[in-house]
Amino acid sequence: MAASSIRALLRVPAGDGGSVDLATIDPRATPGLPGKEVTGRSRKQWARDRVVGIGAELSPQQEMLYASAQVDPAADRRVLLVLQAMDCGGKDGTIRRVAGAMNPLGLHIRSFGPPTREELDHPFLWRIRRALPRPGYVGVFNRSHYEDVLIARVESLVPERVWQSRYDEINDFERELTDGGFTLVKVFLHISYEEQRERLLKRLTDPHKHWKYNPADVDARARWHDYQAAYGAALARCDTDGAPWYVVPADRKWYRDWAVSHLLLETFTDLGLRYPPADFDIERERRRLSDERVC
Amino acid sequence: MAASSIRALLRVPAGDGGSVDLATIDPRATPGLPGKEVTGRSRKQWARDRVVGIGAELSPQQEMLYASAQVDPAADRRVLLVLQAMDCGGKDGTIRRVAGAMNPLGLHIRSFGPPTREELDHPFLWRIRRALPRPGYVGVFNRSHYEDVLIARVESLVPERVWQSRYDEINDFERELTDGGFTLVKVFLHISYEEQRERLLKRLTDPHKHWKYNPADVDARARWHDYQAAYGAALARCDTDGAPWYVVPADRKWYRDWAVSHLLLETFTDLGLRYPPADFDIERERRRLSDERVC
Repeated sequence: MAASSIRALLRVPAGDGGSVDLATIDPRATPGLPGKEVTGRSRKQWARDRVVGIGAELSPQQEMLYASAQVDPAADRRVLLVLQAMDCGGKDGTIRRVAGAMNPLGLHIRSFGPPTREELDHPFLWRIRRALPRPGYVGVFNRSHYEDVLIARVESLVPERVWQSRYDEINDFERELTDGGFTLVKVFLHISYEEQRERLLKRLTDPHKHWKYNPADVDARARWHDYQAAYGAALARCDTDGAPWYVVPADRKWYRDWAVSHLLLETFTDLGLRYPPADFDIERERRRLSDERVC
Repeated sequence: MAASSIRALLRVPAGDGGSVDLATIDPRATPGLPGKEVTGRSRKQWARDRVVGIGAELSPQQEMLYASAQVDPAADRRVLLVLQAMDCGGKDGTIRRVAGAMNPLGLHIRSFGPPTREELDHPFLWRIRRALPRPGYVGVFNRSHYEDVLIARVESLVPERVWQSRYDEINDFERELTDGGFTLVKVFLHISYEEQRERLLKRLTDPHKHWKYNPADVDARARWHDYQAAYGAALARCDTDGAPWYVVPADRKWYRDWAVSHLLLETFTDLGLRYPPADFDIERERRRLSDERVC
């Protein structure tokens, strides 16, 4: 991987003592974005246009992935984008813009809310396993198994020994996935405390956004530092070469979308996918189509 | 419903003796498409632009559907688009264009191939039930339970008494769905025998499309009239007011995409969806956000 790759630039920094200090990463930064000499006057408009362009570039990549799984029952390759963020961090918007520019046919999008009664009766990875994309698909997880070391830790939903053991369980699980053909792209959308306030206020002002507002989000906000610490631990302890974590500065939505789509494009390009070759006699088929009888 | 609605125009004609004669419907027709005095010079470009515009109009509709399910655990409303067609009929392309213009977050797309060993061990509706969209979602079925009265009938995969009984089973199943909050939009993409040949030849010519070519499709093509008859029976016997069938002329891709997205828009508009109102004290929440302490 070139040092200037977006993956290298956004890879979570090495944690000190098993935790990353997110306060050292500026949520308004734009790492990797070309300068104005490339983008022209508006970097924002440039980035928005590129997201659409990258979507068009990803479309044949998705198709090659899908095609391989269609023609080869033993093919197991698939891509899984995991999105995590504080409330208002922009998970839904990222999916609308980034996944919205891709081909919907090969997408498998799954949102995880609070676990149901049935889900609570099973180990925490049970519902995750059931939601995994099949070979050939690009999965997008809107929240994920990481909630079980985030809200579960901050709100003490389980005893400490339980959530403490989950980091290793997650690493084992993700190694199992990468061994099984998964390429994981784990993204933390990093917003500031002030930006969250702005977005919450906007939800209060716009009646079309009231349904997205939950008074409990303000309670969670009062524990901002606890959540940031829980994220810092998850990012440090579950960042592996096989399943790396990326921190995307997300106060600027247009940068966020560009960065996530660029991460996907780099990841796909690295897979070196190709269209499967014909496993039939092309000329013979052409003749059959010219010389046919219908009944 | 106004007589000029696209749904009225495309609703399958009443069948004679339990079957619709598809030969009476022109696959190159463009019912409902405005004339050139509205569309300007290129009807094709106008239709392509409208598909994008309709996608943007559908986005808030999808959001209202999704929002209702998020705030009300008892909400059961959802929309299911069922796409059926002969090989090369354009199911994938329709999904790419029509669903691709919508918000991917609320979409649930599922493709059905030949049943697996496990699926064959269950009644034919078993795998369909497992793939249904949850409340708040728009489902898209790329093929469906109708294969079990199409290929299963033409290729004699099951005895006649079995496939004969399935029409009623399907009607009962779909009534159960509509009673359970589903709005069904069942679309047959209607192409001509000649158009299918053109598209098959194109798949042979373009190496990026070889994976989509299956010599068995030419075998199925030799039974074109049998398949048209099987479609004619399925459309006639499973067209109900609760779960109507629409026939979309599909030789012209731009008309096909416009018609399907227009069908969806009309269907959504009829649902009369609204954003859920706030169930909290807006002013109180605003004060909490202005007067907060973080720990």
